[in-house]
Amino acid sequence: MLDRARTDTQDPAIQYRQLAIEDINFPAHAFDVVISSLALHYVRDFPAVCRNVAACLGTGGDFVFSVEHPIYTADAAQDWCYGTTGERLHWIMDHYQEEGRRDTHFVGEEVVKYHRTVATYINGLLGAGFLIRQIQESQATAGMANGDSPHALDESRRPMFLLVAACTR
Amino acid sequence: MLDRARTDTQDPAIQYRQLAIEDINFPAHAFDVVISSLALHYVRDFPAVCRNVAACLGTGGDFVFSVEHPIYTADAAQDWCYGTTGERLHWIMDHYQEEGRRDTHFVGEEVVKYHRTVATYINGLLGAGFLIRQIQESQATAGMANGDSPHALDESRRPMFLLVAACTR
Repeated sequence: MLDRARTDTQDPAIQYRQLAIEDINFPAHAFDVVISSLALHYVRDFPAVCRNVAACLGTGGDFVFSVEHPIYTADAAQDWCYGTTGERLHWIMDHYQEEGRRDTHFVGEEVVKYHRTVATYINGLLGAGFLIRQIQESQATAGMANGDSPHALDESRRPMFLLVAACTR
Repeated sequence: MLDRARTDTQDPAIQYRQLAIEDINFPAHAFDVVISSLALHYVRDFPAVCRNVAACLGTGGDFVFSVEHPIYTADAAQDWCYGTTGERLHWIMDHYQEEGRRDTHFVGEEVVKYHRTVATYINGLLGAGFLIRQIQESQATAGMANGDSPHALDESRRPMFLLVAACTR
């Protein structure tokens, strides 16, 4: 994070801190913007994160983040339903309202994630005093259709990522 | 709709008008609240509806509505994937980013609906000047588990309805 007190210098110092996201504890109004990329679905208590982020943002501060989409995290398999010849029939949607821990696999590793609904993301932000500015759901673009990535267009069959822009009042 | 000019009377007149939702054209600031129940997924142009509703609401007016959830409307079959003995394996999710017309079946009738994404619903409201106040996604309650409705708890496996509360600034 970029400390506001340092932004007037030509070469502002960037501090790297190794700690749990839930444990951030910065001074009030310390930042103008908080950005998180594909991290918050590893955090169990999203409303707590919203409250902490709101506290360290000033008035009109921006909170912009991406997470794995609830459609993607609902079923722990996080996979397609395949036909007899291995074709992707459709995406498996199940357990949507069962929020909580998901033991998943990613590139050969076991990874713990936390599934929550779209409503929990949006209402968690609203409950911490944020205004919703825009949301987006990832999809394939025409340029993704090429031979190197035969399944690229499948990204439009279900969204993998949810992107949210919110701001403090 | 209840005309604001009539709300001071003891028995305010309720006017029923038979016209397309897209064609509403009320005076500016005519209403305090606009409520729509499971209708707007039959309308093709949601942003236009948002603009029309915003125009007839005063400052701080409420727009509360429910629609079939985008998870429910994405695939035109709107159905589960069944196992060999007819069991519900999971909900079919497909074509999420392909917004537009869906030719579906409901209680023996053919029904035309329009699928759009959660982002399109939220951003359509924001683009018309609304603030998002809360969203909810339907789920089963404990009381729904009884012998008369053996599949009631399946309602938590995927949301059938999206409920949104928004207000004008």
